[in-house]
Amino acid sequence: MKAVVMRGQELVVDDFPLPEPTEDQVVLDTIACGICGSDLHCLKHADELVATSAEGGMEIFMFDTSADIVMGHEFTGRVSRPAANGTGPREGQAVAVMPGLTLPSGKPEAVGYSNTYPGGYGEQVIAGASTCVNVPDHLDPTRAALTEPLAVGLHAVNSGGLVEGDTAIVLGCGPVGLTVVAWLAAKGVLTIVAADFSPGRRTLAATLGADVVVDPTNKSAVDAWREAGGSSKRPPVIFECVGVPGMIDQACAMAPRRTKLVIVGLCMEADTFRPTMAMNKEISMNFVLGWTGREFVSSLEAIASGAIDVEPLITGQVDLDGVPGAFEELASPVEHAKILVIP
Amino acid sequence: MKAVVMRGQELVVDDFPLPEPTEDQVVLDTIACGICGSDLHCLKHADELVATSAEGGMEIFMFDTSADIVMGHEFTGRVSRPAANGTGPREGQAVAVMPGLTLPSGKPEAVGYSNTYPGGYGEQVIAGASTCVNVPDHLDPTRAALTEPLAVGLHAVNSGGLVEGDTAIVLGCGPVGLTVVAWLAAKGVLTIVAADFSPGRRTLAATLGADVVVDPTNKSAVDAWREAGGSSKRPPVIFECVGVPGMIDQACAMAPRRTKLVIVGLCMEADTFRPTMAMNKEISMNFVLGWTGREFVSSLEAIASGAIDVEPLITGQVDLDGVPGAFEELASPVEHAKILVIP
Repeated sequence: MKAVVMRGQELVVDDFPLPEPTEDQVVLDTIACGICGSDLHCLKHADELVATSAEGGMEIFMFDTSADIVMGHEFTGRVSRPAANGTGPREGQAVAVMPGLTLPSGKPEAVGYSNTYPGGYGEQVIAGASTCVNVPDHLDPTRAALTEPLAVGLHAVNSGGLVEGDTAIVLGCGPVGLTVVAWLAAKGVLTIVAADFSPGRRTLAATLGADVVVDPTNKSAVDAWREAGGSSKRPPVIFECVGVPGMIDQACAMAPRRTKLVIVGLCMEADTFRPTMAMNKEISMNFVLGWTGREFVSSLEAIASGAIDVEPLITGQVDLDGVPGAFEELASPVEHAKILVIP
Repeated sequence: MKAVVMRGQELVVDDFPLPEPTEDQVVLDTIACGICGSDLHCLKHADELVATSAEGGMEIFMFDTSADIVMGHEFTGRVSRPAANGTGPREGQAVAVMPGLTLPSGKPEAVGYSNTYPGGYGEQVIAGASTCVNVPDHLDPTRAALTEPLAVGLHAVNSGGLVEGDTAIVLGCGPVGLTVVAWLAAKGVLTIVAADFSPGRRTLAATLGADVVVDPTNKSAVDAWREAGGSSKRPPVIFECVGVPGMIDQACAMAPRRTKLVIVGLCMEADTFRPTMAMNKEISMNFVLGWTGREFVSSLEAIASGAIDVEPLITGQVDLDGVPGAFEELASPVEHAKILVIP
């Protein structure tokens, strides 16, 4: 089938063989797949990602970087071939997919970071029957492709553990930061300060529920938070959603004492920070990844019910041939949030 | 008065002027003062410490590195001049001191890291009347000088938030690691694995309550923990008590998924780590510093009641003239735990 193949550090549109599904897997025609910042990182730093996973004893993210990969893990699809064992969605059903699979050997694979199973940047995908969540009929399944990134935001917000009266700062208003903002607003957090260099992204953050948006060129996010009534007596929860080297140190430097940092922005390079800064302030850091099944389902429900409007997040749409160009566009500071691939 | 003065990156025995106490301060004759690893770091990296504190908006650790400092913040003393306002301990009372003071300007000062108030590496100190805790008559006040480091260990263990059935790994069996081990044992944690390159320190860790001690040259602490029955299904709490660059990354690399790291080892230099390693495993990190007043008092009580025997921690004793030599001895990998200064 036709797919966008990561070959070395290049993206090429080429053929990728769809593996034969096992009896508990379905074949889907891809409806839509979001381009994730992690994929941009992976294209540049795949070797580092795999090396780090190996050294850390991880089972996933352990692909062969010299062999083809089809990335894309934020997708919806329509069932073209139901599971042979009769479980899961029926033919024609639109589903959002939790992108995890298990190889016949028992090894878990992250779909989109696997040499075996293609991700959503292709015409078809394989999904575990039990990892499919039906998209309600009234919801455009293209919009439902935002389920996965929305679940990432929910997972981060849950990790923040905010209680009544807590305030939040979101550093970086790319898709991850924006979904964090959306969930903070949905959960009724009263003061949400969001920072980004891009005017377009700041506008999106405000649309999605940020009370204060700030350009870090002019003012630190913590200063903006103080002006909005934040007090060091009750430190904010800071969500680091940028994921470039130096951000964690910068967040520690600006944070009030006893701040909790939730690190969601994926930085695949080595990073340098000053432990003294973190210790002097007794900072805590939660590094988060992915979501739970419950968070995934809640996210689809939030889209379906209208509790969170994902429409503003979608700032572009390309076909498979447009993916390499979209990656280039997203790699430099942009106004874009989520670009959807419609194969 | 005679004191060990930090002058630039040198320690010299010289005169340091004792400031006039305010009405709520007492003058103490120093009984004993422990040499803390932070002081060793500070002698080398004072400029970095102050620069980091300034950038982080800290009020303490903001001294003039070109002017004299008397370090030492783990001390007991005997009241030679009670507070003029009648509060606090009486003349002749032995006390352990929470080493924090407030300048007449209102600025808080960490005793031992102040150009104004000398720390315990001198014949006399000034202490706030309310920061003195009476040493019970039956307790040797020399031993009570271990209160402060013991409180650091308690604070770290409390930050770890271990519940029934949790297990712990302690990386580094210097004084901080040893007090962490002692508190974990006192609190009934069932599996305590302690790692250190030094055979002497490993023996001390076992004496203080570690169930398993391991030489990291031969085996990782996590492997030792697994052999002792540890399961990734219930990750350990890992206490990082080494405080040299690279340890945080190393801890993340060896840790099972969802491990909580408590960072107690003070690393005053910049440190490099791989965020991807921490994210892939959803590591959380609590950076801790100091203790609360309640933890300080509990620590003195634990020493006084015999709940924790601090005797094994004390591996050396010097007078003021011996301090520069003791710093040199402690700077290279040693068998020592705590060296007490008896002015």
